[in-house]
Amino acid sequence: MSSLYQERLKQFLEYLNSQSIELAIVTQPKNIFYYTGFNSEPYERFMALVVDLKKQVEYLFVPALDEEAANESTHVRNIIPISDEENPYEKLKSTIGGGSKVIGLETKEISLYQQEQLSHFLPNFKYKNIGDFISRQRMIKTPEESAKVLHAVQLIEKVLAEGIKKVEKGMSELDLTAEFDYLMRKFGADGPSFSTTVLSGAKSSLPHGHPDHKKLEEGDFLLIDMGVIADGYSSDITRTFVLGKATKKQKEIYNIVRRATQAGVETAKEGTPIGAIDRVARNVIKEAGYGQYFNNRVGHGLGIDVHEEPSIHEKNDMLVGKGLLFTIEPGIYIPGFGGVRIEEDVYIKEDGTAEVLTSFPTEMQIIDVF
Amino acid sequence: MSSLYQERLKQFLEYLNSQSIELAIVTQPKNIFYYTGFNSEPYERFMALVVDLKKQVEYLFVPALDEEAANESTHVRNIIPISDEENPYEKLKSTIGGGSKVIGLETKEISLYQQEQLSHFLPNFKYKNIGDFISRQRMIKTPEESAKVLHAVQLIEKVLAEGIKKVEKGMSELDLTAEFDYLMRKFGADGPSFSTTVLSGAKSSLPHGHPDHKKLEEGDFLLIDMGVIADGYSSDITRTFVLGKATKKQKEIYNIVRRATQAGVETAKEGTPIGAIDRVARNVIKEAGYGQYFNNRVGHGLGIDVHEEPSIHEKNDMLVGKGLLFTIEPGIYIPGFGGVRIEEDVYIKEDGTAEVLTSFPTEMQIIDVF
Repeated sequence: MSSLYQERLKQFLEYLNSQSIELAIVTQPKNIFYYTGFNSEPYERFMALVVDLKKQVEYLFVPALDEEAANESTHVRNIIPISDEENPYEKLKSTIGGGSKVIGLETKEISLYQQEQLSHFLPNFKYKNIGDFISRQRMIKTPEESAKVLHAVQLIEKVLAEGIKKVEKGMSELDLTAEFDYLMRKFGADGPSFSTTVLSGAKSSLPHGHPDHKKLEEGDFLLIDMGVIADGYSSDITRTFVLGKATKKQKEIYNIVRRATQAGVETAKEGTPIGAIDRVARNVIKEAGYGQYFNNRVGHGLGIDVHEEPSIHEKNDMLVGKGLLFTIEPGIYIPGFGGVRIEEDVYIKEDGTAEVLTSFPTEMQIIDVF
Repeated sequence: MSSLYQERLKQFLEYLNSQSIELAIVTQPKNIFYYTGFNSEPYERFMALVVDLKKQVEYLFVPALDEEAANESTHVRNIIPISDEENPYEKLKSTIGGGSKVIGLETKEISLYQQEQLSHFLPNFKYKNIGDFISRQRMIKTPEESAKVLHAVQLIEKVLAEGIKKVEKGMSELDLTAEFDYLMRKFGADGPSFSTTVLSGAKSSLPHGHPDHKKLEEGDFLLIDMGVIADGYSSDITRTFVLGKATKKQKEIYNIVRRATQAGVETAKEGTPIGAIDRVARNVIKEAGYGQYFNNRVGHGLGIDVHEEPSIHEKNDMLVGKGLLFTIEPGIYIPGFGGVRIEEDVYIKEDGTAEVLTSFPTEMQIIDVF
């Protein structure tokens, strides 16, 4: 495994050299994982992979309490623990010395405060953004990475299949959420990749709603959006069920969304503009007369993070390329009535075609326990 | 409830005026919740509470898909939805106009990228840091806020009490984690306040270790660190159990940590330097000869976030004051052997004394299922 991280780091170093960057400071925890194999959430503590191009040496600065874990999981030899009483920027300075004139920073990650601290301890440097390169590097998944996402997808689909069997009369959204979260752990996931979303009835029209004590009722849409992290990679799936009997309008909406998702998936292949995937799916909904009820982008990249590059929105004119892995998840959300979303995860293979990683059926499923 | 948020916002406005800040941009989701009542995680999308002091108007910029939820949960009248295709900084500019010379930003939250964008669309401003004020304002909890944390504490203690009854022979760390996560939802929590930590045997010496397929074995320490979010507030508790029979050394270590936690709790009162809480607890461990096995700070503030101000470390010379709410969680972590941590949550009441919110017994508990 360690050679995988070394290979990624090597490509990163080549990029840094090509940009005449003398020192790179990587602070985003998932980026650090990507290059080092050390997967940790330092919360407000300082953690950074620091690459000194002139001295050709890498340092991994970690909170002191993570030193042992870091040592066990990375090929980086210089692990620098920082205790809670130390100033991390002072420690950075004393470890690496000064003199680097061009420093690479992830500009979307480094805060103004961190910049002030760096400017204080490492005076007179110019910064260049290295975040976009890292995002682009992470965006292209190897087949091995796709297999890891697939594993996380299979786990969440097993959770979904088992979990919906637990639906019973009188159950609340939270009760069902508990079942899903339980099964995630039980089946060996490291945890949910985001907060499990179980929304029923009119609440299903809230794309970011939270499960609460609302009971599952006959006639409700039941929208389930969830994923797991397994071995460092995330999955993300949405399916919408109908409780009891589906009305004509529910069937209509459901099938429009299903066709929209399918249209999006069929559009996803090498050479197509990413925006076209959004537009094609959106058009299905627009033409059916529900355009006003679908106001967000159709999908997002998926990998180590549950939301990463690329963003699948209608104005993204980047072309779909090999190795992209992303969600396609159109929906119709009618305030006060309810919503439907059907989400698939796709990977663009070496031959330029899409492999659909999700395999849970998309046909409307009725759960009748009433 | 809305008056609570308005009162907080009013204090914030007074601060901004005192600093001659003309425009404030608050982007940290929990800070936005604190002032508006709208509790949402926008992930990489742009969300901001913008206060225009000159025009005396507040705007809440939210991802378009959250517009309905925002409308339902805040007193702020100007909700500005941003769709995925829009440039949020351009929208900010077109909404508020230009001309503000002094802008308040949370410097620990605003990224270099955001600063570049703001500088592009709102040229020629100076920024002042408003993050420290907000942290200090949030740090002082009202009795109502303490009651919310207490509720979250009571929930997690119920989860802990019920969950440990599920321990059985052959169970893995992940199996037990599943039980806890299930009970959190079942008992009505919005979710865990951080990833549930269940570590056994030698793994309990990793302060940030993750539960995995390791089976719970006779003779293991079983360290459980977890919390829930309920009604927007977090709890955080750690207890360490012994599986089967405790050895003399396990008992010794356990009781040292227990005395350290107690000593810390007894030190926590108005007027004491915060650092003293850390030092007093640390000294108990040092004097017992285990000082080298306790390398992190003794605690952290707790509230809307599970980690917030103040940091309870030995060099923090701020005085303990009314309204502080924080954890005290010393530990002894012996690599290859195991670790013990006992964590209490305390609130400094109006009379300056500490209320211990946690009430789960701290006496060593043996779980013998072998």
